[in-house]
Amino acid sequence: MEFEIEARDPRSEARVGVLRTAHGAVETPAFVAVATRGTVKALSVDDLREIGVQILIGNTYHLVLRPGAELVAELGGLHRFSGWEGPWMTDSGGFQVFSLGAGMEHGVGKIASIFPDEEGVPQPRGESLVKVDEEGAWVKSIVDGSWIRFTPEEVIRWQRLLGADIVLPLDECTSPFHDRDYTARAMERTHRWAERALEAFARTKGLGPNPEQVLFGIVQGGAYEDLRRRSARYIGSLGFPGFAIGGSLGRSKEDMYRVLEWTVPELPQGKPRHLLGIGTVEDIVEAVKRGIDTFDCAAPTRMARNGTLLTSDEEGLSIHIKAAGFREDERPIEEGCDCPTCRRYSRAFLRHLFRAGELSYYRLATLHNLRFMVRLMGRIRAAIRAGAPLEIRELLGA
Amino acid sequence: MEFEIEARDPRSEARVGVLRTAHGAVETPAFVAVATRGTVKALSVDDLREIGVQILIGNTYHLVLRPGAELVAELGGLHRFSGWEGPWMTDSGGFQVFSLGAGMEHGVGKIASIFPDEEGVPQPRGESLVKVDEEGAWVKSIVDGSWIRFTPEEVIRWQRLLGADIVLPLDECTSPFHDRDYTARAMERTHRWAERALEAFARTKGLGPNPEQVLFGIVQGGAYEDLRRRSARYIGSLGFPGFAIGGSLGRSKEDMYRVLEWTVPELPQGKPRHLLGIGTVEDIVEAVKRGIDTFDCAAPTRMARNGTLLTSDEEGLSIHIKAAGFREDERPIEEGCDCPTCRRYSRAFLRHLFRAGELSYYRLATLHNLRFMVRLMGRIRAAIRAGAPLEIRELLGA
Repeated sequence: MEFEIEARDPRSEARVGVLRTAHGAVETPAFVAVATRGTVKALSVDDLREIGVQILIGNTYHLVLRPGAELVAELGGLHRFSGWEGPWMTDSGGFQVFSLGAGMEHGVGKIASIFPDEEGVPQPRGESLVKVDEEGAWVKSIVDGSWIRFTPEEVIRWQRLLGADIVLPLDECTSPFHDRDYTARAMERTHRWAERALEAFARTKGLGPNPEQVLFGIVQGGAYEDLRRRSARYIGSLGFPGFAIGGSLGRSKEDMYRVLEWTVPELPQGKPRHLLGIGTVEDIVEAVKRGIDTFDCAAPTRMARNGTLLTSDEEGLSIHIKAAGFREDERPIEEGCDCPTCRRYSRAFLRHLFRAGELSYYRLATLHNLRFMVRLMGRIRAAIRAGAPLEIRELLGA
Repeated sequence: MEFEIEARDPRSEARVGVLRTAHGAVETPAFVAVATRGTVKALSVDDLREIGVQILIGNTYHLVLRPGAELVAELGGLHRFSGWEGPWMTDSGGFQVFSLGAGMEHGVGKIASIFPDEEGVPQPRGESLVKVDEEGAWVKSIVDGSWIRFTPEEVIRWQRLLGADIVLPLDECTSPFHDRDYTARAMERTHRWAERALEAFARTKGLGPNPEQVLFGIVQGGAYEDLRRRSARYIGSLGFPGFAIGGSLGRSKEDMYRVLEWTVPELPQGKPRHLLGIGTVEDIVEAVKRGIDTFDCAAPTRMARNGTLLTSDEEGLSIHIKAAGFREDERPIEEGCDCPTCRRYSRAFLRHLFRAGELSYYRLATLHNLRFMVRLMGRIRAAIRAGAPLEIRELLGA
């Protein structure tokens, strides 16, 4: 894997780059489409190509539960199995360990708000499905209720078998409601697990379908400045070829921006930086300015399925397609959008499909929202290259 | 509308024709894809074009309940509203009157077997949602429980507003468990309703978005030879430009073939003949031999969603994708199939998607099954033109 920075914004930390993997190049800043169980929900790989998606992220927890890492390896790895022969990332399952454990107990996500899981399933509260210890974590399967052992070594072995281009070590995420002391201890454990993951990754070279696979480090430390700086320096010193920023990002957007301002300067400057699980338009623009290269987030696709469609034609940058006001609206979701949905369908027909619960709705909505994100990232890259301001209004022409 | 017969099978009543509508031509024998509520479930109009679908059939009952015929007319009619600018048929809602009424009481469909409705919803038994009288029928809405008045005139007005190219009059279907007497009385009523529909159709010329719309007649008469012959002669005498064969087709495939052998010779020879709601591979081949030109059936798309995929590679011409035997099966659903699904995906991955309940499964499965039907119809037309035998094994190369 190579990462080359091609242009920098003189007014911020934003940069344009190319991340070259064994399965193709990714122009950054880029949106990584969420394909938890090997597919972007409701779309095919031909759809993804048509709307310009560059890279997908699968989830080790979900894929290990079903269909199993061994089976995916037997079938040639995630690229061949899924039909997506472009770049793949896999998340380690660390966030699932968090969301099924502390997140479940506290009822919170990465920022202090109630969260649905990646599958859009409302989460029960109060009962942890995870037991974390120094060795790793016991995690309850949402498929059959069995307890599965997650260790830094096993998570690396699974990801070797899956064969994504970029993989992540097991980490211990914390919630915004964890105190400084717990957050510090979880961070220290994440550091020890990072070292074990690096060793396991070196030891398993040659296992699985993708010899060019790389392992990124994950920075933790919650919303505490000294912890974030310490974690970024430490993880940055271990020789990882790239980094992800994970865990709690505080209680507000401003907290999140500060976390990035503490973390990014402490990381090696020429290496790619991924922000885990973040992806509203505003958050992406602000995070790019603070030096983030790639993002993954289930929100644009989940919102699509729930009826919220992104559009620069309206205040708030979205519409809820169920609203009575769209009953006779013959306009596309967004004027001038080049997605397959806006080329063919009116808001009125999409509203009909949504209300009728028609399966075709889910794909058409997802195609649009994902194309919206892909276009946004292209405009961000163009603005950085042109030295234009990174402001939402200018980027979206809204 | 014009119908031209281009070739005839010397050994049977089979024929190749072209049905020309204001929205394009249909090569017959043709499979009419079911788009009950304005969309083929899980597919887009671009999908339909890609797999070669020629014509769709919507349902007046479902479209009147939601979004309403007036709204569809305001939005330019079914063609413009749905994005499918090719030929459209609409069914009158007569079959829904039957299936929500007598079908619900008897728990049976067109042939004497338990049936799910077009939406694939298991039907409750024993409670009729319909009251039929001479004037028309009261039908309970499955959307909000209100009672809606269906009359031959109102059903024509609705279909004028929807604007399909070929529309059908309200008819009274019977079940295989209705006796000869009831079947005869329902047939006589269907005949009176056909005359009222013709008058209403003439009176409403100019209403709605499609001045080229035509009304086909529907033949009833259950599985009784004299009734079928009488109904075909009578309906055939009223000047309709084409015909549909509806209602009970008996208790077995053999009964159905006999119904066609009684009915078809009594109809005007140069006009198109549609068989309502029939569509297994075997039934289509046998019905084509008995002079049927077009078919609609929800089975191929519903089977797809339920996991049954059509393939000439296996005994029985289908597989159930959930079966453990496909766990590591890297073959496409059907070797040599040119559908978008078989070009990209293995049985193993489709099995994974099906088991995980992924939305993308439904589209990929539907694309394949519908492409299978489209290819079958093309092979039937080619065989008739070539004077080759109309046998399933030869047609499918199985």
